Amino acid sequence: MTGTLIGVGLGPGDPDLMTLKAARAIGAADVVAYPALPDTDSFARSIAADLIRPDAHEIVIEVPMTKSREPAQAAYDLGADRIAEALEAGRNVAVLCEGDPFFYGSFMYLHARLAARFPVEVIPGITSVSAGAARAAAPLTARNEVLTVLPGPLDSDTLAARISDADSIVIMKVGRHLARIRDVLDAQGLSDRAVYIERATLSAERILPLAQAPDPAPYFSLILVTKGSDPWL
Amino acid sequence: MTGTLIGVGLGPGDPDLMTLKAARAIGAADVVAYPALPDTDSFARSIAADLIRPDAHEIVIEVPMTKSREPAQAAYDLGADRIAEALEAGRNVAVLCEGDPFFYGSFMYLHARLAARFPVEVIPGITSVSAGAARAAAPLTARNEVLTVLPGPLDSDTLAARISDADSIVIMKVGRHLARIRDVLDAQGLSDRAVYIERATLSAERILPLAQAPDPAPYFSLILVTKGSDPWL
Ligand SMILES: C[S@@+](CC[C@H](N)C(=O)[O-])C[C@H]1O[C@@H](n2cnc3c(N)ncnc32)[C@H](O)[C@@H]1O
Ligand SMILES: C[S@@+](CC[C@H](N)C(=O)[O-])C[C@H]1O[C@@H](n2cnc3c(N)ncnc32)[C@H](O)[C@@H]1O
Repeated sequence: MTGTLIGVGLGPGDPDLMTLKAARAIGAADVVAYPALPDTDSFARSIAADLIRPDAHEIVIEVPMTKSREPAQAAYDLGADRIAEALEAGRNVAVLCEGDPFFYGSFMYLHARLAARFPVEVIPGITSVSAGAARAAAPLTARNEVLTVLPGPLDSDTLAARISDADSIVIMKVGRHLARIRDVLDAQGLSDRAVYIERATLSAERILPLAQAPDPAPYFSLILVTKGSDPWL
Repeated sequence: MTGTLIGVGLGPGDPDLMTLKAARAIGAADVVAYPALPDTDSFARSIAADLIRPDAHEIVIEVPMTKSREPAQAAYDLGADRIAEALEAGRNVAVLCEGDPFFYGSFMYLHARLAARFPVEVIPGITSVSAGAARAAAPLTARNEVLTVLPGPLDSDTLAARISDADSIVIMKVGRHLARIRDVLDAQGLSDRAVYIERATLSAERILPLAQAPDPAPYFSLILVTKGSDPWL
């Protein structure tokens, strides 16, 4: 009997925002796997640290941050092979995923490589979107409003079009795209309605009007824009 | 000293998908409030039932389902008044919210009425979107893909335009709009890529290809469409 691949959503950073199910899965896992930048502590592992069993076997997937895709693909190939070995030996493997595994999560790359061969369970997690809105006290969408989530690296014309068509907008992966995103929002008169949210729910959290956001922004930041319909009902 | 208004996200239905923080907040609350349809058990209350203190004071907000907005507005006005009374007496009030409070949640109507007068804390919850994707084993979005969330009651032209502009689409509040939504997806050749998800994570959960979905669909259902980019990386 093979083991089960478990994608465990950990939420945005505060360990208290893990679900009861995720906490239980981590505490029960004798194999955990997670991605990490080379020579950097894994953010996912840090969220779950207090729950990982001291005797758990840990599979670290070192994913290089390069322009070309091949080195990262090779890293996920290798990680998937090591996870497959444990699954074939009948052990369950809990893959630690920041936020929600299926929402821009690296778990998807392991899922694509392993789901046809092994049973899979996915434990959803609190997204950085829900966490960011909660921390910024900014309601996302009500009634028949449209919400669009956009990655910051998209070109400015695409960003502009998608922003003008939605009622609420979340822009992920801001980083070095901050100034360009701000220009796009300025052109639509939306900068005043935009909140910059960095490291939501962590002790280093920063929430600022977009005009005061750092440029470039760090990787763990997003921008929230609500066009301000009245949620009175 | 006034109490704090706490919007508690409960997740999609399985009580194990509550966060540790939400579970703790409910267990500590001596006043809980929640919406309910007249003469119907509150879904939000049922998720949290095992954690509510037996001696907790419960404020039930009976929200009628009518076409005109006024009766529901009046119900939230009344509910907000009763919550304000408890807050003014220095008691914290935990408002139970299915899913995430700021994602199409009725908590937003209480927040709009009370946030200017009282301290507020929002505990984010697992959305039905994250839960539905996890249960359907359907990755939502990777890399630079665009996700758009659409309420089913939107007119067909708006649905069609927003669907053609996104890589992944979630349609909420399906209900009696199912056949119309299916026509819109058919016209774009997307029906084969659409999954129907009903009561995700509950014992009555159903996950079906859109072609087999019931018409009309029940209220607690959504449709997930992924245009199928390759998540290989
Ligand atoms: C690879 S995606 C992972 C998203 C994650 N799976 C989720 O559910 O939120 C990384 C992006 O998520 C956003 N992000 C993740 N955690 C965050 C946090 N705590 N605060 C602000 N943004 C965050 C940032 O935009 C970052 O560039
Ligand atoms: C008023 S909205 C509340 C959304 C909720 N706050 C959330 O975060 O998911 C109600 C809609 O959410 C969706 N929904 C909520 N729970 C669901 C579940 N367990 N399964 C499928 N759809 C669900 C349905 O589309 C329903 O019409």
